[in-house]
Amino acid sequence: MTTTSQNASPAASTTGAAASTSASRPLRVTVWGENRHEKRDARVRENYPEGMHSAIRDAVTENLGEGVATRIALLDDPEHGLSEEVLAQTDVLTWWGHMAHDEVSDEVAERVQRHVLAGMGLVVLHSGHWSKPFTRLMGTTCTLRWRNERDRELVWTVNPSHPIAAGIPHPIVIDEQEMYGEHFDIPVPDELVFVSSFSGGEVFRSGCCFRRGKGKIFYFSPGDQDYPVYQHPDVRRVIANGVDWARPAAAEREVPFLDRYPTDWFLTGESGQGVGDAEAAGKGE
Amino acid sequence: MTTTSQNASPAASTTGAAASTSASRPLRVTVWGENRHEKRDARVRENYPEGMHSAIRDAVTENLGEGVATRIALLDDPEHGLSEEVLAQTDVLTWWGHMAHDEVSDEVAERVQRHVLAGMGLVVLHSGHWSKPFTRLMGTTCTLRWRNERDRELVWTVNPSHPIAAGIPHPIVIDEQEMYGEHFDIPVPDELVFVSSFSGGEVFRSGCCFRRGKGKIFYFSPGDQDYPVYQHPDVRRVIANGVDWARPAAAEREVPFLDRYPTDWFLTGESGQGVGDAEAAGKGE
Amino acid sequence: MTTTSQNASPAASTTGAAASTSASRPLRVTVWGENRHEKRDARVRENYPEGMHSAIRDAVTENLGEGVATRIALLDDPEHGLSEEVLAQTDVLTWWGHMAHDEVSDEVAERVQRHVLAGMGLVVLHSGHWSKPFTRLMGTTCTLRWRNERDRELVWTVNPSHPIAAGIPHPIVIDEQEMYGEHFDIPVPDELVFVSSFSGGEVFRSGCCFRRGKGKIFYFSPGDQDYPVYQHPDVRRVIANGVDWARPAAAEREVPFLDRYPTDWFLTGESGQGVGDAEAAGKGE
Amino acid sequence: MTTTSQNASPAASTTGAAASTSASRPLRVTVWGENRHEKRDARVRENYPEGMHSAIRDAVTENLGEGVATRIALLDDPEHGLSEEVLAQTDVLTWWGHMAHDEVSDEVAERVQRHVLAGMGLVVLHSGHWSKPFTRLMGTTCTLRWRNERDRELVWTVNPSHPIAAGIPHPIVIDEQEMYGEHFDIPVPDELVFVSSFSGGEVFRSGCCFRRGKGKIFYFSPGDQDYPVYQHPDVRRVIANGVDWARPAAAEREVPFLDRYPTDWFLTGESGQGVGDAEAAGKGE
Repeated sequence: MTTTSQNASPAASTTGAAASTSASRPLRVTVWGENRHEKRDARVRENYPEGMHSAIRDAVTENLGEGVATRIALLDDPEHGLSEEVLAQTDVLTWWGHMAHDEVSDEVAERVQRHVLAGMGLVVLHSGHWSKPFTRLMGTTCTLRWRNERDRELVWTVNPSHPIAAGIPHPIVIDEQEMYGEHFDIPVPDELVFVSSFSGGEVFRSGCCFRRGKGKIFYFSPGDQDYPVYQHPDVRRVIANGVDWARPAAAEREVPFLDRYPTDWFLTGESGQGVGDAEAAGKGE
Repeated sequence: MTTTSQNASPAASTTGAAASTSASRPLRVTVWGENRHEKRDARVRENYPEGMHSAIRDAVTENLGEGVATRIALLDDPEHGLSEEVLAQTDVLTWWGHMAHDEVSDEVAERVQRHVLAGMGLVVLHSGHWSKPFTRLMGTTCTLRWRNERDRELVWTVNPSHPIAAGIPHPIVIDEQEMYGEHFDIPVPDELVFVSSFSGGEVFRSGCCFRRGKGKIFYFSPGDQDYPVYQHPDVRRVIANGVDWARPAAAEREVPFLDRYPTDWFLTGESGQGVGDAEAAGKGE
Repeated sequence: MTTTSQNASPAASTTGAAASTSASRPLRVTVWGENRHEKRDARVRENYPEGMHSAIRDAVTENLGEGVATRIALLDDPEHGLSEEVLAQTDVLTWWGHMAHDEVSDEVAERVQRHVLAGMGLVVLHSGHWSKPFTRLMGTTCTLRWRNERDRELVWTVNPSHPIAAGIPHPIVIDEQEMYGEHFDIPVPDELVFVSSFSGGEVFRSGCCFRRGKGKIFYFSPGDQDYPVYQHPDVRRVIANGVDWARPAAAEREVPFLDRYPTDWFLTGESGQGVGDAEAAGKGE
Repeated sequence: MTTTSQNASPAASTTGAAASTSASRPLRVTVWGENRHEKRDARVRENYPEGMHSAIRDAVTENLGEGVATRIALLDDPEHGLSEEVLAQTDVLTWWGHMAHDEVSDEVAERVQRHVLAGMGLVVLHSGHWSKPFTRLMGTTCTLRWRNERDRELVWTVNPSHPIAAGIPHPIVIDEQEMYGEHFDIPVPDELVFVSSFSGGEVFRSGCCFRRGKGKIFYFSPGDQDYPVYQHPDVRRVIANGVDWARPAAAEREVPFLDRYPTDWFLTGESGQGVGDAEAAGKGE
């Protein structure tokens, strides 16, 4: 890893000993793709000759440089390419799925949710709004208004000091795109970065940050199989910025757990006694 | 999560009931209780001779008066007392459970979640932080730091303009209480109303508002089976304020659903074409 | 005030004993208007024969009924109609100004700010984004993108459980309107209710709630002197909902102040010793 | 600047061309100090032999390393050390003042506010809650509950994924400290990172992030002239993390301004026509 690549990477933003990703290794990004439209639809293959996942991976690497190490995982891989081992070695996971959400096993969806709560970053793209990991983490239906008729989308920044908006034009212009409109049934984002408009006059909260457990989630709606949106340099930059923002804050990964402390913990220095979920249903009773 | 699949029939989830705040009828509150400690523990019966659920119901009625109509539902009732009919006629549901979260059926937990997303208010009390409906709606573990050693709890208002804080002293003093401390693994509350401190020096975000779908959720941590906290007039007032705040904003109850509009919807006046989940997994593809 | 009018109004959402403003008197609303365009521009007189302030007042009364008592105050009144006495008797103040922001005295602007911090509600309309009271309370420039070329504005609800969105169509359609676009330089709203789009493709956070001190502020951008926007029934309903939402949570009005408590305040029952600003510059030192 | 210093610096977090702080120069931090107690009070000189500002500067440099270039500015310097030139060359300004807030000129206070709105980061420490720049930016009184009686303060993290919490123990223990308690009259923080408790049972939102204009503001309450709190390694780490977080997102510094665009801006490619404040009072009318 060269000095240049380190400069290109925000990894350095977690400084010092507590840095989640040490200076000695790059940010580990796993790009998950459904890879079904690519097999079925000629139009999609035209837009993305090497698959949508490759375009998304390239978005990350071209912007974050050698500061990242990427891996691709696909729906049809064993365990969808998301084994416990892979997730344990993933700092940020990107997710694109559309026509086969239901084919993702509940076990893997829960595993992704658990890793996010333990600190892994998650960048959910476009139709991933209905993916199992995202809806589990949101708790809502994540439905929206919708149309696929070549709308022009304008992506406006409403949070100019946010790192995900760094270097992004105001607005991003996407000539042809699927329309996603409000009401988008998500929790209120912790940080709202972008709002889009469409040819039909609809608006959409298109760039949304959420914090869940110890992990960060960025949802970004531009991007579709029917249009070459992931070839758009500004869209690619946003995805890379989002991956960068979502990097873990802490080095260790641990799902939050019930922790019991005596009243005099402060005086005795006694540390917490973690209590397992099973016994803790009634907190020991 | 099957919330999405339930969207396939938005009509079915429409109660057709009148406005929640219709002029002609009071706010309909269902008080759900686990009612197990009361049967098992003499101490709990001393604190709550008529059951914890009765104390919670009284908190609501004594503060909201004839403006409310209450109903009690218990874990051991058929369908836990929360049939589709009961929820359809409930404006706000309060939830207290502790030792038997796992005995709540997934079907009922999902039903409660669906009604919240469709507009029903939900007030989650104390150990309900680990209940199925709440954790489904939050998407996080909802774990916390904990101790049961007769801490003094002080409940401080950090949002003085919030209606839930109306008429509440600063701080509420609770002489004996279980300790719940940070980190409380919840999403960032949409509105943070109260923060508590405890004898051991811990702090806790004890009054938290969340908006999910078309429904409002208020979590309030004071209250326990081992201490007569629900007899505390300030605590009772907060619960009533929370019920009042959580009342539905809209008359009709409907789970958010995918809606397709043509580009020229505005010119033609064509209305949305709800699209069921089944066909919409890939939005029709 | 009849029972019917209270039920018809969202005032009913603060029912019973917890109501912040007693049932025995109506909500006192002061409608402030600049009243300059009306004198100068024939077009404005056509849109608003009795002045813009009258249209705004009518919006409130027609929706909140006998539950409100309104008063009109104008720039050219002594002290702009906003004496200490008037503000002390105002629960919610609405503000419309455009061409004469600078003519509002600093003294009155500071008085309004102080009353908001002490609990008075404030509803800021359209070009009031640049008024002295609003920019003082926000701390930012409150600038925006702008054009006056008869744009169509669509006002979309992004927070369907919010009381200000109750009864509002999705979207509100305004045929002709001035364009206000992002970036709107305001603090992140505490509650974002509406987002608008315009003919030119711009978006705008058009309905924003802020909490400052003990007071609530609602900013709503639709409304202009050059178009009859305040005659639009949905716009009028939003204004009334906003007035209702902004009502004070507490009966007493008091600017937050420095308060000194000894360590053993809890044991001794000693109450706080308010410390005046002057002596407290260095907190007594 | 060495590779090491770049790793130690989060400068790299704004990657690519738009990075606010290019790879070729360090983050420029100006540490502002009142420097009055140091002259007057022997106790303060004992706690901070080289002045409080030196301790704060050391907190930044020891944690961010050669990635930063610091400058000290004091109240008694010409223009308080904060000329237009100095601010133009400051990426992040830290502010500590206590007994002489009123001696800061309105001109300099307004200059600081303007630079924050244009993108400069601001870290406000402890008694700076009542400083002119902070209260101007907040719009509220920023008052609080208070006592100076050697309380123990515990600083708890409520936002574990936040970069400012990286590497910080849960809780930070401060043996002796001034008490600052709720209600703290600030706007709701955009991101709440820390909540403290004190010996007297009070709580305080002690680590708060705000976004204003294009700038970021971090308020952190631990730190006092009467106790050696700025010698505490965890407190120092938080200050450094806050400085790092507050760095500008954009390279250019520009106060938000009114911008007029024609309806067909999109088709013609016509760019915005900035409109000066003076002529724009009524937006040109």
